[in-house]
Amino acid sequence: MSKNIKLNMSRRIRRTPYTNRVEEHGVSDFTVVNHMLLPKGFKNSVEEDYWHLSKDVQIWDVSCQRQVQISGPDAAKLVQKLTPRSLQNMETGKCFYIPMLNENGGMINDPVLLKLDDDMFWISIADSDILLWAKGYALGLNLNVQIEEPDVYPLAIQGPKSEDLMVSIFGEEIRKIKFFNYRVLDFEGTKQIIARSGYSKQDGFEIYFKVHENYFDKIEMGEKLWDTIWDAGKIFNISPGCPNLIDRIECGLMSYGNDFTGENNPFECNLDKYCPSDASHEYIGKTALSKIQNEGIKQRMRGIIFDGDPCPATTQPLKVLSKENKKIGQITSGIFSPRIKKNIGLSMILKDHWEIGKNVIVETLNGDKRNGTITSLPFPN
Amino acid sequence: MSKNIKLNMSRRIRRTPYTNRVEEHGVSDFTVVNHMLLPKGFKNSVEEDYWHLSKDVQIWDVSCQRQVQISGPDAAKLVQKLTPRSLQNMETGKCFYIPMLNENGGMINDPVLLKLDDDMFWISIADSDILLWAKGYALGLNLNVQIEEPDVYPLAIQGPKSEDLMVSIFGEEIRKIKFFNYRVLDFEGTKQIIARSGYSKQDGFEIYFKVHENYFDKIEMGEKLWDTIWDAGKIFNISPGCPNLIDRIECGLMSYGNDFTGENNPFECNLDKYCPSDASHEYIGKTALSKIQNEGIKQRMRGIIFDGDPCPATTQPLKVLSKENKKIGQITSGIFSPRIKKNIGLSMILKDHWEIGKNVIVETLNGDKRNGTITSLPFPN
Repeated sequence: MSKNIKLNMSRRIRRTPYTNRVEEHGVSDFTVVNHMLLPKGFKNSVEEDYWHLSKDVQIWDVSCQRQVQISGPDAAKLVQKLTPRSLQNMETGKCFYIPMLNENGGMINDPVLLKLDDDMFWISIADSDILLWAKGYALGLNLNVQIEEPDVYPLAIQGPKSEDLMVSIFGEEIRKIKFFNYRVLDFEGTKQIIARSGYSKQDGFEIYFKVHENYFDKIEMGEKLWDTIWDAGKIFNISPGCPNLIDRIECGLMSYGNDFTGENNPFECNLDKYCPSDASHEYIGKTALSKIQNEGIKQRMRGIIFDGDPCPATTQPLKVLSKENKKIGQITSGIFSPRIKKNIGLSMILKDHWEIGKNVIVETLNGDKRNGTITSLPFPN
Repeated sequence: MSKNIKLNMSRRIRRTPYTNRVEEHGVSDFTVVNHMLLPKGFKNSVEEDYWHLSKDVQIWDVSCQRQVQISGPDAAKLVQKLTPRSLQNMETGKCFYIPMLNENGGMINDPVLLKLDDDMFWISIADSDILLWAKGYALGLNLNVQIEEPDVYPLAIQGPKSEDLMVSIFGEEIRKIKFFNYRVLDFEGTKQIIARSGYSKQDGFEIYFKVHENYFDKIEMGEKLWDTIWDAGKIFNISPGCPNLIDRIECGLMSYGNDFTGENNPFECNLDKYCPSDASHEYIGKTALSKIQNEGIKQRMRGIIFDGDPCPATTQPLKVLSKENKKIGQITSGIFSPRIKKNIGLSMILKDHWEIGKNVIVETLNGDKRNGTITSLPFPN
């Protein structure tokens, strides 16, 4: 399999307001999420970036986390129908992780929902066109809502020094933002949503940078934001970064399309707490989910720690075998953890084998067989 | 801007049953369409591939043309609601190009619809998740349909020698397949849909290769199909290929996400004939489209022929200016045509400037200004 696949660029694969800056910093490769570029590495190795992220602060272009804005009289009603998680007590200023299901109870996305007002929400999506899903559903139900993709390009500031860096730009109010809450702060005379959140286990913030109408040019303003953070970040040893595979696997953060797909239900993904069987509201997939819950699930997401030489980042699933050499699951995201000093992986494992502590065999892409052990998630410290 | 962007692979960017073969043939780069790899070039230049395509025959991995299968009692009703084009007289065995609109009349895809039976359709999509769109809408309307993505991986055989090649494998019935019709033929004991169609102006076929349940392994069977065609194709001077930018621009074939987006209505894309104002059926966007038609459109897709050195394949739009240096549109796909011996481009041009024969100025990405002329589409011979 090719190690160096070249990406052919076109307008269909959208650049972001920060792509120029990311390229100036020597981005090594990209992936495509929601028809938009997501940087996947810079000059340092994944391991070097991992240690840096755990000590200092990084700036990530996560513009591909597109926002689906739902507003209007029926907005709250629609959003509630899109997820099994109850939004009854959700207040403005909150961010909620919400599984989204199809009619069969299969996962179609696992976004973060922001409540901007009683009749205004943003759904910050993983890689599937939830804009079309929500619009189609609302049209079918003839709901009174407007659904659009606003000109918003999230920029993540991640790492233990992120708070001090953000304070140096936006002021002391930053310290008051609790995890999965946001506040609206000023940047260059515009209101910007800043949440304490991010796709890492380190502390961090996501700036939902919105291009306001009075801006002349979105790239110009995006670069102004990037440069402001970069310049203020120098004394904090800031570096360009991106979601780090080691960090995200260690803390059990799943990636939609990699670790789970529409073929998986939320129980298989350990999202039981967002899908209570006594939910009082109606939502897409409720009937199917109830049936799945009654019948019991056949597989579940687990951690696996396994032996041998450092495993390169997985590009394809690795087979997981029982001691009798039967396939009992697959590692969907795997890599060597320099902290645990073993290989680790997120894996979907059949019921008879998912018990914590169970011994399994991992088959690498070149056919090597490694001894492994089932663990809980996040990986134990 | 980077010329050599590296694509980071993961399970989220799906490989196809033919990706191994494509790599063995020395694919130079890929793009991502519908979360799946689409080859964008091989060892030869775009111009060499263009001449080869116009004389011989090529095999293209177009698996990314994912199928949205709609079946059940309400299937025909749903499909008709998804497009302004009337399907009233569509017979089984036919392929219809169907614009798909959102509630504002904006284009959300321009797929090819295949009617497999009165209650069974495939929508062969461009790059947006129509599976979610159709499912969401059907759920909202509570229609009695099943919607899924079947295990189908289209393989295109394109070029003037494609008919003889296909006859040598599938028999004389191939010659009877008319343009935008399909027949069901046998391959290794399975029924396969073969249409006379393809994303080029040359003659050609698309095999909607379906992985049947009795197949042991989809890659094994996909490679068997590829190898069968490849071996039979040697005497026809077959070569691996992909949609050719010169060929597609010359014949005015638009690319969704490149030449038009959800911001464009079908009239702007010259799709007027699929959107008659006297359509008797209801469809998404009908009210909006009627309003647009009454008010008149502000821009329209045109061809532009322009001077100067051969223009490299566009990765970003090129500005089109009036003689007074005002921006009047943009070239969304442009390249040098070795047949016309000029640069050519698909462009969206403002109303006061879209007249055929009008002189315009094209600004290349490095700021050069070139003289150009508005033409009709497809480009004149």
